[in-house]
Amino acid sequence: MEIVGFVAAFLTTAAFLPQVYQTWKTKDVTSLSMPMLTMFFVGIILWLIYGISINSPSMIVANSITVISAFMLVYFKIKYAKK
Amino acid sequence: MEIVGFVAAFLTTAAFLPQVYQTWKTKDVTSLSMPMLTMFFVGIILWLIYGISINSPSMIVANSITVISAFMLVYFKIKYAKK
Repeated sequence: MEIVGFVAAFLTTAAFLPQVYQTWKTKDVTSLSMPMLTMFFVGIILWLIYGISINSPSMIVANSITVISAFMLVYFKIKYAKK
Repeated sequence: MEIVGFVAAFLTTAAFLPQVYQTWKTKDVTSLSMPMLTMFFVGIILWLIYGISINSPSMIVANSITVISAFMLVYFKIKYAKK
């Protein structure tokens, strides 16, 4: 079943990339809510810890990549909100 | 460690609700990309199958709820894109 996890990991990870790219390109962060981004970022970190604890390769891979996407969105929100 | 999974489940599930609410309220789906929504929706279904297969209560709960959020966003995108 690990293959199902890896396909899931690929799909949900890849689904965030257009959002990161669009935000980076347009610098438009008005429609992104900070509480939402923060909850999501912390949630992904916890999923990563959980994935490590239950020894799930696909969860570890997926959340290691998604945590970077989530971090970048939080960073963009802070950086571009001031302008 | 299941508690970490449940907190993660709560955070990432709740992070999607403002997006669903905002889209339902504004009927504005222009900034949502259909390929992204579809990938995400299919990805969540696969995470749910994976969660069941590895017997992870927090993954089953989280993805059962998130699959509804993802489905609603796909539905809104189809419904409001035509207007």
